[in-house]
Amino acid sequence: MRHTISVLVENKFGVLSRISGLFSGRGYNIESLSVNKTLEEGISIMTIVTSGDDAIIEQIIKQLRKLVNVLKVRDVSQMDHIEREMMLLKVRTEKTNRSEIFNIINTFRGKTIDITNNSLVVEITGAKDKLMAFVKVLEPYGIIEVGRTGAIALSRGSKPTTDFK
Amino acid sequence: MRHTISVLVENKFGVLSRISGLFSGRGYNIESLSVNKTLEEGISIMTIVTSGDDAIIEQIIKQLRKLVNVLKVRDVSQMDHIEREMMLLKVRTEKTNRSEIFNIINTFRGKTIDITNNSLVVEITGAKDKLMAFVKVLEPYGIIEVGRTGAIALSRGSKPTTDFK
Repeated sequence: MRHTISVLVENKFGVLSRISGLFSGRGYNIESLSVNKTLEEGISIMTIVTSGDDAIIEQIIKQLRKLVNVLKVRDVSQMDHIEREMMLLKVRTEKTNRSEIFNIINTFRGKTIDITNNSLVVEITGAKDKLMAFVKVLEPYGIIEVGRTGAIALSRGSKPTTDFK
Repeated sequence: MRHTISVLVENKFGVLSRISGLFSGRGYNIESLSVNKTLEEGISIMTIVTSGDDAIIEQIIKQLRKLVNVLKVRDVSQMDHIEREMMLLKVRTEKTNRSEIFNIINTFRGKTIDITNNSLVVEITGAKDKLMAFVKVLEPYGIIEVGRTGAIALSRGSKPTTDFK
């Protein structure tokens, strides 16, 4: 099963390396990972997406909790939650197909953020499936390149996912 | 100086751990990191934001290029580029201030993606400064928690940043 794990960590040297080592050491690949600062000084939030045997992922989570500088670990996929990622796509355009491409972008509620005579950069956010559908529709025009964040997730409702800002 | 580095890697066990180890081994903290799959099978795109002495970061980039499974490394901050991140914010609301909060969200072009009687979740994208300005305006209402991707970046113009989809 696919698991989305939120990890609150102290922003210290080597934390990321230790955490990713825990996954690779067990032969588990990380599908996506995002880490950035929270609003609390010195605390970062990490979101890891991985797939595999539930029992082994449960073990990895237990080991994560024992790591130095790890404050909180939550398997968000076991809660009612919102999960989203962001993609930047550089797409080839021609005079004759540009308005067609704009229509697609509007349908997916993308934002065009850079434009030249023969290309544009569009920003799109959403669940992975939506992003992949968007890519599929744009592919025939020529995708020059993509930038992509890892997925991030929050629980639905007014309670905090991890009790941390 | 702040550096945003794009790294194309083969999606193999241990790559993330080796790359992050290179930074922590030199006492360099990673401010944010995002990694996810590209459109090419088996290839992932990683974006690392770090700050520090230019000469040392140049050395780290040279060492990154020598790592197994690393295909391409580019210091995007040295090009004309677009850099963006995404944040999910869970904010406390009351009957009396909800429309006020919606006005703020619209001004920053945020998207409200979950709502309860006393809270909402808003998605916002942009450069770090914009996100921090948004947070500052919402803080007085009560921020329950945040989810946050690392920054991602693409070069402006029609040429690819790293010659990879």
